[in-house]
Amino acid sequence: MERLPGFRDFYPEPVPLSDGWSMELRQHLFDGWRAVARRYGFREYDGPPLETLELYTAKSGDEIVHQLYHFDDKGGRAVSLRPEMTPTLARLVAASERHYKKPIKWYAIPQLFRYERQQKGRLREHFQFNADIVGEPDPAADAELIALLIDLLRGCGLAADDFRVRLSSRNAWRDFFRQRGGQPEREYDFYQIVDKLERTSPEESARQLDSLGISFGEIQDFIRSAQPTDELSRILDGLEAHGLRGFVQIDYAIVRGLAYYTGPVFEAFDGKGRFRAIAGGGRYDHLLRLMSGGRADLPAAGFGLGDVVLTELLRERQLVPPLRPALDAFFLIEDQALRPATLRMVHDLRAAGFSVDYPLSQAKSDKQFKRALELGAIHTLRLEPGSAGAVVARVKHLASRAERIAPAAEIAAILRGALPSSTG
Amino acid sequence: MERLPGFRDFYPEPVPLSDGWSMELRQHLFDGWRAVARRYGFREYDGPPLETLELYTAKSGDEIVHQLYHFDDKGGRAVSLRPEMTPTLARLVAASERHYKKPIKWYAIPQLFRYERQQKGRLREHFQFNADIVGEPDPAADAELIALLIDLLRGCGLAADDFRVRLSSRNAWRDFFRQRGGQPEREYDFYQIVDKLERTSPEESARQLDSLGISFGEIQDFIRSAQPTDELSRILDGLEAHGLRGFVQIDYAIVRGLAYYTGPVFEAFDGKGRFRAIAGGGRYDHLLRLMSGGRADLPAAGFGLGDVVLTELLRERQLVPPLRPALDAFFLIEDQALRPATLRMVHDLRAAGFSVDYPLSQAKSDKQFKRALELGAIHTLRLEPGSAGAVVARVKHLASRAERIAPAAEIAAILRGALPSSTG
Repeated sequence: MERLPGFRDFYPEPVPLSDGWSMELRQHLFDGWRAVARRYGFREYDGPPLETLELYTAKSGDEIVHQLYHFDDKGGRAVSLRPEMTPTLARLVAASERHYKKPIKWYAIPQLFRYERQQKGRLREHFQFNADIVGEPDPAADAELIALLIDLLRGCGLAADDFRVRLSSRNAWRDFFRQRGGQPEREYDFYQIVDKLERTSPEESARQLDSLGISFGEIQDFIRSAQPTDELSRILDGLEAHGLRGFVQIDYAIVRGLAYYTGPVFEAFDGKGRFRAIAGGGRYDHLLRLMSGGRADLPAAGFGLGDVVLTELLRERQLVPPLRPALDAFFLIEDQALRPATLRMVHDLRAAGFSVDYPLSQAKSDKQFKRALELGAIHTLRLEPGSAGAVVARVKHLASRAERIAPAAEIAAILRGALPSSTG
Repeated sequence: MERLPGFRDFYPEPVPLSDGWSMELRQHLFDGWRAVARRYGFREYDGPPLETLELYTAKSGDEIVHQLYHFDDKGGRAVSLRPEMTPTLARLVAASERHYKKPIKWYAIPQLFRYERQQKGRLREHFQFNADIVGEPDPAADAELIALLIDLLRGCGLAADDFRVRLSSRNAWRDFFRQRGGQPEREYDFYQIVDKLERTSPEESARQLDSLGISFGEIQDFIRSAQPTDELSRILDGLEAHGLRGFVQIDYAIVRGLAYYTGPVFEAFDGKGRFRAIAGGGRYDHLLRLMSGGRADLPAAGFGLGDVVLTELLRERQLVPPLRPALDAFFLIEDQALRPATLRMVHDLRAAGFSVDYPLSQAKSDKQFKRALELGAIHTLRLEPGSAGAVVARVKHLASRAERIAPAAEIAAILRGALPSSTG
C-alpha cells in the first residue's frame, strides 16, 4: 500500500524516513503563525478543501487552471481540490460581509493542491498561511499585511539578512504596458512574460515581448529604475513607521502570476536567492465584485506563505528548534499489586495537567527504564509501600539523577519543580 | 458561487449565517483534544487527505466502500478522499514501525469524507480525533484508550450523566455466531445486522437473522445478559483503577460496522440517547498484518471522535464557552501627525505579545471607538503630545472606564494588569 505521489506523511519526531515530514515542525509553524496573526488582530476562518471547478476557472488565470486537481464527482459535478485560498475567501466574504464591519482582517491555514502531469517528484500539496484585509483601499492595509508577513518570518527565527520582501506594482506595469500601446486583451500574457523573466533566457523573453510590441530593453530599464510609485511610497512609509523598512526593497521584476491582482504586489525570498518564493501576495480590488456578481464590491489585499519552501529555508539556516515533546513523568511498575494505585495516580497527575505514561503490561525493570528514556521522560516515578499501609513514590529526576521519596500528595509539586527533587 | 453540498464553511465568531460553523469552536475543540492526548503521552501524526482507492476497498467492509468519495485522477489512478484514518495509520505504521519502540501511541485530527448520493442535507465531511495504540495486545491498552476518550469528553465540559461508553466484544459475537453454526463467510453480514438492530424493526431483524440460521430471541437474550467476558472484565478493572468505571457499561448491542475489528469494541453516546454515536472504536489485531503484506504483524486498537455530533451535544447542553477572542488594545488615532509614532508603538506592543489593532485610515473619533468595541478591545490607547516633545498615551480600560495618562514605557505593564489602569 503506497502513498500517492506528491503527497506527504507527517510523523512524530524523530522522523524515521527520509521522505517523511515532521508533524511537530508542522504544528510548531502553525502555532507560531496563529500567535502572530492574533497579535495583529486577524481572525481565523476556513472553507472546504473541495470547491466547484468554476470557482477557479473564471478569475485566477490560465496558469493555475492548468494545474488544478479537478475531477467530476459521483453526481457529475465538476469539482476541484482547492489550489489557492483567495476564491474561497471571496465566496465567504460575499456570503457574509454585510454582518462584519470593515475592514475584515482574516487568516486561514489551508492545505492546497495542484496536479501537474509532467513534473515527477514535485509535491502536489502544501499548507499555506493566508491573510487578507477586505474593505480597506488605503495602502496602510498593504503595509499592515507586509508587516505581518515580516513578523511571521521573524517569528520563525529568520533575521534581516535571511530574507527580503520584494515590492512591486501591477498598476505600474499596467501603465507601462498601456503607454506603449499594449492591447488590453494581451495584458495578462504580458504579466506572465514579466513574471517569468528570471527563469527565462533573455533571447526568449525578448522574442515573446516582441510579439506584444514591447521592447526588452525598456523592460530592463524600468526594472532597473526601481522608482517607487506614490502608492508604493506610502507603503514604504508605513513600514518605516512599523520599524520594518529594512526588510523591503522596490523590485519591479516581481509582477505575480495570478490574473486578479490590481495594485501593489510583493514576494518574499531568502536572502541568498537560493529558493523559490517563500510568500507572495498583493492587492485585488475587483475580484470580490466579479465573484459576487456585484453584491460585494470591496477592495482587498492579501498574501500566502507556504510551509514547504519555508521549511527548506529553516533547515538550511539550522533554525528548526528541537521539537521532541518531553513527558513530565514515566511510572515504573515493579510490583503488579501496585498497578491499580499507580493507574489512579497516573490519572490524577494527567488531570492536573502533567503528561504521564506507564507500562501497559508487565515488563522487566531495565526495559521499563529504557522506555522512559525513549519517551523523553523528565522524571521516573515508582510507588512503594510506605509505613502504616500508605503508598509513597520514589521520584527520580533523570537529568540530575536526584532522587527522593515523597508522599503522594507532594508529587505534583515536585513535577512542577516547586519542591526540590532530592532529599539529600 | 456556491459551496458544494455537504461541506462546511467556518467563520470567525459571532458566526453570522445559520449554516455557518464557528472557526473558534473548531479550534477550541482541537486545542483541547491535543492537550488531553499529550497528557496521555500520545504523539500526533497525519497523512494525505487523498489516498489510493485500494487502501479502503480491501479491508474496511462494504458499508464504508459504498460511501467513498472516490474518483479517477488526471493520471487515471483510482483515488479516494479518506473516509476514515485507520488505513492511513496502518500504512504509516507498516512503513515506519521498525524505527519506533512499541507500544506506539499516536493520534491525529483528520478531516474525513464520504459521498452518499441519496441523502441530501447530510454532511459529506467532518473532523475526527483518532487515537491508536499499536503493538500492545494487553486489554490495558483498550482501557487506556477508553480512559482517553472519557477524558476528551470531560475536557469539553461533559459530566458523568451527559454521556456513557457502551463496551462490547466482537469476539463474544463471533463465538456466539460460530457456536450456532454460522458460516464464516456470512460473519460480516451477521455483524451488520446486529449493528443495525437499534435502527431496524424487530420483524425485519428477525427475518434477516433467519436467513443466517440465527434466532432473534437468542440475540435479545445475549444482549440482555450483559455478562462481561474475561477480556472485558480486565478492561473494566483497568477503568476502575483509573477512577472511570462509572462512565462505562457492558452493552452487547454494540458491535461496530467496520469489518476489521477483532476484540473489544465500544461507542460513546450522549446520556439521553438523543444523538448518533459521538465516538467509536475497538481492537483490530489483524489489520496491520493484512495491510502490510505480513511485514508488520502488530496488534492494535483505536477509536475516532467526530466534531459534528459532539458539537450538537455541547450546544444542547449549553457547554460551548464564549469564544470571541479579546483584543488587548485598540489604538485611536485623532491627530494624523501621531500616526507614525502610533504605528511604532503598535508594533512594539505586538512584539511584546499583545494583540493590538488600530484604524488603517482616517476616521471619525466615534467610528474609531465603535470599532474598538466591535473588536472586543479591553483597552483603548491614544497617543498625545507630552511635555518636552515626548509622547504619552491615554489608556482607557473599557469595562471599568478607568483612564490614565502613562509614558510609553509603562503601557505594556498596564495592559498586562501589573499597573493600575487608573491614576485616580
